[in-house]
Amino acid sequence: MTAFSKDEREAIYRVIRERRDIRRFRSDPIAEPVLERLLAAASQAPSVGYMQPWNFLLIRDMEVRRRIHREFLAANEEAKELFEGERQAQYARLKLEGILESALNLCITCDRSRFGPVVLGRTCQPDMDLFSTVCAVQNLWLAARAEGVGVGWVSIIRQEALRRILELPDPVVPIAYLCVGYTDAFPAEPELKTAGWLPQLPLSDLVFHDGWGRRKA
Amino acid sequence: MTAFSKDEREAIYRVIRERRDIRRFRSDPIAEPVLERLLAAASQAPSVGYMQPWNFLLIRDMEVRRRIHREFLAANEEAKELFEGERQAQYARLKLEGILESALNLCITCDRSRFGPVVLGRTCQPDMDLFSTVCAVQNLWLAARAEGVGVGWVSIIRQEALRRILELPDPVVPIAYLCVGYTDAFPAEPELKTAGWLPQLPLSDLVFHDGWGRRKA
Repeated sequence: MTAFSKDEREAIYRVIRERRDIRRFRSDPIAEPVLERLLAAASQAPSVGYMQPWNFLLIRDMEVRRRIHREFLAANEEAKELFEGERQAQYARLKLEGILESALNLCITCDRSRFGPVVLGRTCQPDMDLFSTVCAVQNLWLAARAEGVGVGWVSIIRQEALRRILELPDPVVPIAYLCVGYTDAFPAEPELKTAGWLPQLPLSDLVFHDGWGRRKA
Repeated sequence: MTAFSKDEREAIYRVIRERRDIRRFRSDPIAEPVLERLLAAASQAPSVGYMQPWNFLLIRDMEVRRRIHREFLAANEEAKELFEGERQAQYARLKLEGILESALNLCITCDRSRFGPVVLGRTCQPDMDLFSTVCAVQNLWLAARAEGVGVGWVSIIRQEALRRILELPDPVVPIAYLCVGYTDAFPAEPELKTAGWLPQLPLSDLVFHDGWGRRKA
Protein backbone atom coordinates (compact mmCIF):
# COMPACT_ATOMS: atom_id res chain seq x y z
CA MET A 1 0.00 0.00 0.00
CA THR A 2 1.25 3.47 -0.83
CA ALA A 3 1.95 6.10 1.80
CA PHE A 4 -0.58 8.79 2.63
CA SER A 5 0.17 12.19 1.10
CA LYS A 6 0.55 15.33 3.17
CA ASP A 7 -2.89 16.49 2.01
CA GLU A 8 -4.46 13.18 3.02
CA ARG A 9 -2.82 13.32 6.46
CA GLU A 10 -4.08 16.86 6.94
CA ALA A 11 -7.63 15.82 6.06
CA ILE A 12 -7.46 13.05 8.65
CA TYR A 13 -6.14 15.33 11.37
CA ARG A 14 -8.75 17.90 10.42
CA VAL A 15 -11.67 15.51 10.85
CA ILE A 16 -10.30 14.30 14.19
CA ARG A 17 -9.93 17.92 15.35
CA GLU A 18 -13.33 19.14 14.07
CA ARG A 19 -15.54 16.19 15.13
CA ARG A 20 -18.13 17.35 17.67
CA ASP A 21 -20.87 15.92 19.84
CA ILE A 22 -23.94 17.49 18.20
CA ARG A 23 -27.26 18.12 19.94
CA ARG A 24 -28.92 20.52 17.48
CA PHE A 25 -30.24 19.03 14.25
CA ARG A 26 -32.16 19.83 11.13
CA SER A 27 -34.66 17.17 10.14
CA ASP A 28 -33.83 16.81 6.42
CA PRO A 29 -33.09 13.15 5.68
CA ILE A 30 -29.65 11.67 5.14
CA ALA A 31 -29.30 10.38 1.56
CA GLU A 32 -29.11 6.59 1.41
CA PRO A 33 -25.61 6.43 -0.19
CA VAL A 34 -24.25 8.68 2.58
CA LEU A 35 -25.78 6.47 5.25
CA GLU A 36 -24.34 3.37 3.59
CA ARG A 37 -20.88 4.93 3.62
CA LEU A 38 -21.20 5.72 7.32
CA LEU A 39 -22.25 2.17 8.20
CA ALA A 40 -19.47 0.72 6.04
CA ALA A 41 -16.94 2.91 7.86
CA ALA A 42 -18.25 1.67 11.20
CA SER A 43 -18.00 -1.97 10.09
CA GLN A 44 -14.34 -1.48 9.13
CA ALA A 45 -13.41 -0.95 12.78
CA PRO A 46 -10.94 -3.29 14.45
CA SER A 47 -12.62 -6.12 16.32
CA VAL A 48 -11.16 -8.54 18.82
CA GLY A 49 -10.55 -11.91 17.16
CA TYR A 50 -12.29 -10.50 14.06
CA MET A 51 -15.63 -11.21 15.77
CA GLN A 52 -17.37 -8.14 14.29
CA PRO A 53 -19.80 -8.02 17.22
CA TRP A 54 -21.78 -5.00 16.03
CA ASN A 55 -25.30 -4.47 14.73
CA PHE A 56 -26.82 -1.21 13.54
CA LEU A 57 -30.42 -0.40 14.45
CA LEU A 58 -31.75 2.50 12.37
CA ILE A 59 -34.62 4.11 14.23
CA ARG A 60 -36.93 6.36 12.24
CA ASP A 61 -40.28 5.37 13.80
CA MET A 62 -41.48 8.36 15.84
CA GLU A 63 -43.36 6.25 18.37
CA VAL A 64 -40.18 4.31 19.21
CA ARG A 65 -38.30 7.58 19.48
CA ARG A 66 -40.90 9.11 21.78
CA ARG A 67 -40.55 6.13 24.12
CA ILE A 68 -36.77 6.54 24.10
CA HIS A 69 -37.15 10.27 24.69
CA ARG A 70 -39.38 9.72 27.73
CA GLU A 71 -36.69 7.44 29.18
CA PHE A 72 -34.10 10.14 28.54
CA LEU A 73 -36.24 12.73 30.35
CA ALA A 74 -36.62 10.49 33.39
CA ALA A 75 -32.90 9.65 33.55
CA ASN A 76 -32.00 13.28 33.04
CA GLU A 77 -34.19 14.39 35.98
CA GLU A 78 -32.42 11.84 38.19
CA ALA A 79 -29.03 12.98 36.90
CA LYS A 80 -29.80 16.64 37.56
CA GLU A 81 -30.39 15.87 41.24
CA LEU A 82 -26.77 14.69 41.55
CA PHE A 83 -25.51 18.22 40.94
CA GLU A 84 -25.95 21.09 43.36
CA GLY A 85 -26.60 24.82 43.35
CA GLU A 86 -25.29 26.78 40.36
CA ARG A 87 -23.86 23.57 38.87
CA GLN A 88 -27.36 22.08 38.84
CA ALA A 89 -28.82 25.19 37.21
CA GLN A 90 -26.09 25.08 34.59
CA TYR A 91 -26.79 21.36 33.97
CA ALA A 92 -30.48 22.09 33.48
CA ARG A 93 -29.68 24.70 30.81
CA LEU A 94 -27.62 22.28 28.67
CA LYS A 95 -29.23 20.65 25.64
CA LEU A 96 -28.05 17.05 25.83
CA GLU A 97 -29.86 15.21 23.02
CA GLY A 98 -31.70 15.55 19.72
CA ILE A 99 -33.75 12.35 19.78
CA LEU A 100 -36.95 13.72 18.29
CA GLU A 101 -35.66 16.33 15.85
CA SER A 102 -32.69 14.54 14.23
CA ALA A 103 -33.16 12.79 10.89
CA LEU A 104 -32.24 9.44 12.36
CA ASN A 105 -31.53 7.65 15.61
CA LEU A 106 -28.97 4.85 15.48
CA CYS A 107 -28.29 2.29 18.16
CA ILE A 108 -24.99 0.40 17.77
CA THR A 109 -25.03 -2.85 19.73
CA CYS A 110 -22.55 -5.55 20.72
CA ASP A 111 -23.57 -9.21 20.37
CA ARG A 112 -21.41 -10.85 23.02
CA SER A 113 -22.25 -14.36 21.78
CA ARG A 114 -21.21 -13.86 18.16
CA PHE A 115 -19.23 -16.82 16.78
CA GLY A 116 -19.47 -18.66 20.12
CA PRO A 117 -18.14 -18.26 23.65
CA VAL A 118 -14.36 -18.42 23.02
CA VAL A 119 -13.02 -15.41 21.14
CA LEU A 120 -9.36 -14.92 20.26
CA GLY A 121 -8.05 -11.97 22.29
CA ARG A 122 -11.07 -11.82 24.63
CA THR A 123 -9.96 -14.74 26.78
CA CYS A 124 -8.55 -12.67 29.65
CA GLN A 125 -10.03 -9.24 28.87
CA PRO A 126 -13.75 -10.01 28.59
CA ASP A 127 -14.75 -6.45 27.67
CA MET A 128 -12.75 -6.35 24.46
CA ASP A 129 -15.89 -6.94 22.38
CA LEU A 130 -17.55 -3.89 23.93
CA PHE A 131 -14.43 -1.87 23.12
CA SER A 132 -14.43 -3.12 19.50
CA THR A 133 -17.96 -1.81 19.16
CA VAL A 134 -16.87 1.59 20.51
CA CYS A 135 -14.19 1.70 17.79
CA ALA A 136 -17.00 1.24 15.26
CA VAL A 137 -18.86 4.17 16.83
CA GLN A 138 -15.80 6.41 16.54
CA ASN A 139 -15.23 5.42 12.89
CA LEU A 140 -18.82 6.34 12.09
CA TRP A 141 -18.56 9.61 14.02
CA LEU A 142 -15.50 10.73 12.06
CA ALA A 143 -16.94 9.68 8.70
CA ALA A 144 -20.15 11.54 9.51
CA ARG A 145 -18.23 14.73 10.27
CA ALA A 146 -16.55 14.49 6.88
CA GLU A 147 -20.00 14.15 5.27
CA GLY A 148 -21.29 17.20 7.16
CA VAL A 149 -23.53 14.96 9.27
CA GLY A 150 -23.72 15.59 13.00
CA VAL A 151 -23.65 12.80 15.58
CA GLY A 152 -24.50 13.04 19.28
CA TRP A 153 -24.07 10.18 21.77
CA VAL A 154 -26.96 10.00 24.26
CA SER A 155 -25.69 8.27 27.40
CA ILE A 156 -28.31 9.64 29.78
CA ILE A 157 -30.64 6.69 29.41
CA ARG A 158 -30.69 3.35 31.20
CA GLN A 159 -29.38 0.40 29.17
CA GLU A 160 -32.32 -1.66 30.41
CA ALA A 161 -34.75 0.82 28.85
CA LEU A 162 -32.94 0.57 25.51
CA ARG A 163 -32.97 -3.23 25.71
CA ARG A 164 -36.70 -3.29 26.39
CA ILE A 165 -37.80 -0.71 23.81
CA LEU A 166 -35.53 -2.05 21.06
CA GLU A 167 -36.31 -5.70 21.93
CA LEU A 168 -32.65 -6.70 22.23
CA PRO A 169 -32.08 -10.40 23.01
CA ASP A 170 -30.07 -11.35 26.06
CA PRO A 171 -26.48 -11.49 24.79
CA VAL A 172 -26.84 -8.16 22.94
CA VAL A 173 -25.73 -4.98 24.73
CA PRO A 174 -26.62 -1.48 23.54
CA ILE A 175 -23.32 0.40 23.38
CA ALA A 176 -24.19 3.74 21.79
CA TYR A 177 -27.51 5.48 21.21
CA LEU A 178 -26.77 8.13 18.61
CA CYS A 179 -28.72 11.05 17.19
CA VAL A 180 -27.66 11.50 13.57
CA GLY A 181 -28.50 14.30 11.17
CA TYR A 182 -27.52 17.47 9.40
CA THR A 183 -26.83 20.44 11.61
CA ASP A 184 -26.49 24.17 11.05
CA ALA A 185 -23.21 24.37 12.93
CA PHE A 186 -20.31 22.29 14.12
CA PRO A 187 -19.08 24.37 17.06
CA ALA A 188 -15.44 25.45 17.01
CA GLU A 189 -14.86 23.83 20.39
CA PRO A 190 -16.58 21.17 22.53
CA GLU A 191 -19.73 22.73 23.99
CA LEU A 192 -18.88 21.73 27.56
CA LYS A 193 -15.52 23.47 27.22
CA THR A 194 -17.13 26.63 25.83
CA ALA A 195 -19.74 26.56 28.59
CA GLY A 196 -16.98 26.41 31.21
CA TRP A 197 -18.26 23.08 32.54
CA LEU A 198 -14.73 21.65 32.73
CA PRO A 199 -11.36 22.96 31.50
CA GLN A 200 -9.25 21.38 28.76
CA LEU A 201 -6.33 19.43 30.24
CA PRO A 202 -2.85 20.17 28.86
CA LEU A 203 -1.69 17.10 26.93
CA SER A 204 1.79 17.27 28.44
CA ASP A 205 0.29 16.70 31.91
CA LEU A 206 -1.20 13.41 30.71
CA VAL A 207 1.95 11.76 29.35
CA PHE A 208 4.11 9.49 31.50
CA HIS A 209 7.20 7.43 30.75
CA ASP A 210 7.72 3.74 31.59
CA GLY A 211 5.35 3.84 34.59
CA TRP A 212 2.54 5.85 36.18
CA GLY A 213 3.50 9.38 37.24
CA ARG A 214 7.01 9.26 35.79
CA ARG A 215 8.06 12.34 33.87
CA LYS A 216 10.80 12.23 31.27
CA ALA A 217 14.30 12.09 32.77
CA MET B 1 -16.63 25.64 9.57
CA THR B 2 -16.32 24.86 5.88
CA ALA B 3 -17.40 21.55 4.37
CA PHE B 4 -14.92 18.78 3.68
CA SER B 5 -13.91 18.46 0.02
CA LYS B 6 -14.32 15.24 -1.93
CA ASP B 7 -10.56 14.63 -1.69
CA GLU B 8 -10.64 15.12 2.08
CA ARG B 9 -13.57 12.73 2.44
CA GLU B 10 -11.77 10.13 0.36
CA ALA B 11 -8.65 10.41 2.52
CA ILE B 12 -10.77 9.82 5.62
CA TYR B 13 -12.51 6.80 4.15
CA ARG B 14 -9.15 5.50 2.94
CA VAL B 15 -7.56 5.60 6.38
CA ILE B 16 -10.60 3.91 7.94
CA ARG B 17 -10.43 1.17 5.29
CA GLU B 18 -6.66 0.65 5.41
CA ARG B 19 -6.09 0.72 9.18
CA ARG B 20 -4.76 -2.64 10.36
CA ASP B 21 -3.87 -4.40 13.60
CA ILE B 22 -0.09 -4.74 13.14
CA ARG B 23 2.07 -7.38 14.80
CA ARG B 24 5.29 -7.11 12.74
CA PHE B 25 7.47 -4.07 13.37
CA ARG B 26 10.77 -2.50 12.49
CA SER B 27 12.60 -1.00 15.45
CA ASP B 28 13.52 2.42 14.00
CA PRO B 29 12.25 5.11 16.34
CA ILE B 30 9.20 7.29 15.74
CA ALA B 31 10.20 10.94 15.32
CA GLU B 32 9.09 13.10 18.24
CA PRO B 33 6.83 15.43 16.16
CA VAL B 34 5.02 12.39 14.71
CA LEU B 35 4.46 10.96 18.18
CA GLU B 36 3.17 14.32 19.41
CA ARG B 37 0.65 14.44 16.56
CA LEU B 38 -0.57 10.94 17.42
CA LEU B 39 -1.08 11.80 21.09
CA ALA B 40 -2.81 15.07 20.19
CA ALA B 41 -5.19 13.14 17.90
CA ALA B 42 -5.98 10.74 20.75
CA SER B 43 -6.67 13.58 23.15
CA GLN B 44 -9.17 15.12 20.71
CA ALA B 45 -11.50 12.16 21.17
CA PRO B 46 -15.01 12.70 22.53
CA SER B 47 -15.23 12.20 26.28
CA VAL B 48 -18.27 11.84 28.46
CA GLY B 49 -18.95 15.11 30.32
CA TYR B 50 -15.65 16.40 28.85
CA MET B 51 -13.84 14.49 31.60
CA GLN B 52 -10.82 13.59 29.38
CA PRO B 53 -10.11 10.49 31.48
CA TRP B 54 -7.05 9.34 29.52
CA ASN B 55 -3.34 9.14 30.26
CA PHE B 56 -0.63 8.00 27.89
CA LEU B 57 2.21 5.85 29.23
CA LEU B 58 5.09 5.66 26.74
CA ILE B 59 7.08 2.53 27.45
CA ARG B 60 10.56 2.32 25.98
CA ASP B 61 12.40 0.67 28.89
CA MET B 62 13.28 -2.87 27.77
CA GLU B 63 13.13 -4.32 31.27
CA VAL B 64 9.53 -3.12 31.67
CA ARG B 65 8.70 -4.53 28.25
CA ARG B 66 10.26 -7.89 29.06
CA ARG B 67 8.07 -8.14 32.16
CA ILE B 68 5.00 -7.30 30.07
CA HIS B 69 6.06 -9.82 27.45
CA ARG B 70 6.39 -12.60 30.04
CA GLU B 71 2.83 -11.86 31.16
CA PHE B 72 1.66 -12.04 27.55
CA LEU B 73 3.35 -15.43 27.10
CA ALA B 74 1.66 -16.84 30.21
CA ALA B 75 -1.78 -15.49 29.23
CA ASN B 76 -1.32 -16.74 25.68
CA GLU B 77 -0.52 -20.28 26.88
CA GLU B 78 -3.73 -20.27 28.93
CA ALA B 79 -5.68 -18.90 25.96
CA LYS B 80 -4.33 -21.56 23.61
CA GLU B 81 -5.76 -24.28 25.84
CA LEU B 82 -9.27 -22.91 25.23
CA PHE B 83 -9.09 -23.94 21.57
CA GLU B 84 -9.04 -27.52 20.35
CA GLY B 85 -7.46 -29.64 17.62
CA GLU B 86 -6.64 -27.87 14.34
CA ARG B 87 -8.04 -24.62 15.72
CA GLN B 88 -5.48 -24.76 18.54
CA ALA B 89 -2.65 -25.47 16.12
CA GLN B 90 -3.75 -22.53 13.98
CA TYR B 91 -3.92 -20.29 17.07
CA ALA B 92 -0.37 -21.30 18.03
CA ARG B 93 0.92 -20.27 14.58
CA LEU B 94 -0.52 -16.72 14.79
CA LYS B 95 1.79 -13.84 15.75
CA LEU B 96 -0.29 -11.79 18.18
CA GLU B 97 2.04 -9.05 19.50
CA GLY B 98 5.22 -7.09 18.86
CA ILE B 99 6.04 -6.01 22.41
CA LEU B 100 9.81 -6.40 22.24
CA GLU B 101 10.56 -5.45 18.65
CA SER B 102 8.31 -2.39 18.12
CA ALA B 103 9.78 1.10 18.55
CA LEU B 104 7.42 1.91 21.37
CA ASN B 105 4.82 0.40 23.66
CA LEU B 106 1.96 2.68 24.69
CA CYS B 107 -0.57 2.04 27.42
CA ILE B 108 -3.68 4.24 27.29
CA THR B 109 -5.45 4.33 30.64
CA CYS B 110 -8.75 5.62 32.04
CA ASP B 111 -8.73 7.54 35.34
CA ARG B 112 -12.23 6.85 36.63
CA SER B 113 -11.91 9.45 39.38
CA ARG B 114 -10.96 12.41 37.19
CA PHE B 115 -12.81 15.59 38.15
CA GLY B 116 -14.64 13.79 40.97
CA PRO B 117 -17.30 11.10 41.30
CA VAL B 118 -20.24 12.71 39.46
CA VAL B 119 -19.66 13.04 35.72
CA LEU B 120 -22.21 14.52 33.31
CA GLY B 121 -23.44 11.69 31.06
CA ARG B 122 -21.94 8.90 33.19
CA THR B 123 -24.68 8.99 35.80
CA CYS B 124 -26.63 5.98 34.53
CA GLN B 125 -24.09 4.42 32.16
CA PRO B 126 -21.04 4.02 34.41
CA ASP B 127 -18.78 2.62 31.68
CA MET B 128 -18.96 5.71 29.50
CA ASP B 129 -15.50 6.84 30.67
CA LEU B 130 -14.00 3.54 29.53
CA PHE B 131 -15.69 4.01 26.16
CA SER B 132 -14.37 7.58 25.86
CA THR B 133 -10.87 6.19 26.31
CA VAL B 134 -11.48 3.64 23.56
CA CYS B 135 -12.45 6.52 21.24
CA ALA B 136 -9.03 8.02 21.98
CA VAL B 137 -7.39 4.70 21.05
CA GLN B 138 -9.22 4.62 17.72
CA ASN B 139 -8.28 8.24 16.93
CA LEU B 140 -4.62 7.42 17.54
CA TRP B 141 -4.85 4.23 15.51
CA LEU B 142 -6.22 6.07 12.46
CA ALA B 143 -3.73 8.93 12.75
CA ALA B 144 -0.89 6.43 13.04
CA ARG B 145 -1.99 4.67 9.85
CA ALA B 146 -1.89 8.00 8.02
CA GLU B 147 1.66 8.53 9.31
CA GLY B 148 2.71 5.06 8.13
CA VAL B 149 3.02 3.91 11.75
CA GLY B 150 1.63 0.51 12.69
CA VAL B 151 -0.41 -0.09 15.85
CA GLY B 152 -1.31 -3.45 17.40
CA TRP B 153 -3.62 -3.83 20.41
CA VAL B 154 -2.41 -6.55 22.81
CA SER B 155 -5.42 -7.82 24.75
CA ILE B 156 -3.92 -11.18 25.73
CA ILE B 157 -2.58 -9.98 29.07
CA ARG B 158 -4.29 -9.71 32.43
CA GLN B 159 -5.27 -6.17 33.46
CA GLU B 160 -3.92 -6.90 36.95
CA ALA B 161 -0.48 -7.61 35.49
CA LEU B 162 -0.53 -4.29 33.65
CA ARG B 163 -1.64 -2.46 36.80
CA ARG B 164 1.18 -4.00 38.83
CA ILE B 165 4.00 -3.57 36.31
CA LEU B 166 2.99 -0.02 35.33
CA GLU B 167 2.25 0.96 38.96
CA LEU B 168 -1.25 2.23 38.19
CA PRO B 169 -3.10 3.71 41.18
CA ASP B 170 -6.47 2.29 42.14
CA PRO B 171 -8.96 4.37 40.13
CA VAL B 172 -6.87 4.02 36.94
CA VAL B 173 -7.77 1.22 34.51
CA PRO B 174 -5.50 0.11 31.66
CA ILE B 175 -7.70 0.17 28.54
CA ALA B 176 -5.31 -0.53 25.67
CA TYR B 177 -1.78 -1.88 25.61
CA LEU B 178 -0.47 -0.95 22.17
CA CYS B 179 2.64 -1.87 20.20
CA VAL B 180 3.54 1.11 18.02
CA GLY B 181 6.14 1.36 15.28
CA TYR B 182 7.01 1.39 11.62
CA THR B 183 6.21 -1.74 9.69
CA ASP B 184 7.21 -3.14 6.32
CA ALA B 185 3.63 -3.87 5.34
CA PHE B 186 0.06 -2.94 6.10
CA PRO B 187 -1.77 -6.07 4.92
CA ALA B 188 -4.51 -5.61 2.34
CA GLU B 189 -7.01 -7.34 4.63
CA PRO B 190 -7.27 -8.14 8.36
CA GLU B 191 -4.87 -11.01 9.08
CA LEU B 192 -7.51 -13.14 10.79
CA LYS B 193 -9.71 -12.86 7.71
CA THR B 194 -6.84 -13.80 5.38
CA ALA B 195 -5.93 -16.72 7.66
CA GLY B 196 -9.50 -18.01 7.45
CA TRP B 197 -9.95 -17.68 11.22
CA LEU B 198 -13.42 -16.13 10.80
CA PRO B 199 -15.32 -14.88 7.75
CA GLN B 200 -16.28 -11.27 7.05
CA LEU B 201 -19.96 -10.64 7.80
CA PRO B 202 -22.04 -8.94 5.08
CA LEU B 203 -22.97 -5.48 6.32
CA SER B 204 -26.56 -5.83 5.12
CA ASP B 205 -27.07 -8.75 7.55
CA LEU B 206 -26.16 -6.47 10.46
CA VAL B 207 -28.62 -3.65 9.84
CA PHE B 208 -32.07 -3.60 11.46
CA HIS B 209 -34.91 -1.07 11.41
CA ASP B 210 -36.75 0.30 14.46
CA GLY B 211 -36.10 -2.83 16.56
CA TRP B 212 -33.93 -5.93 16.82
CA GLY B 213 -34.25 -8.35 13.90
CA ARG B 214 -36.57 -6.16 11.87
CA ARG B 215 -35.72 -5.92 8.20
CA LYS B 216 -36.83 -3.01 6.07
CA ALA B 217 -40.50 -3.17 5.11
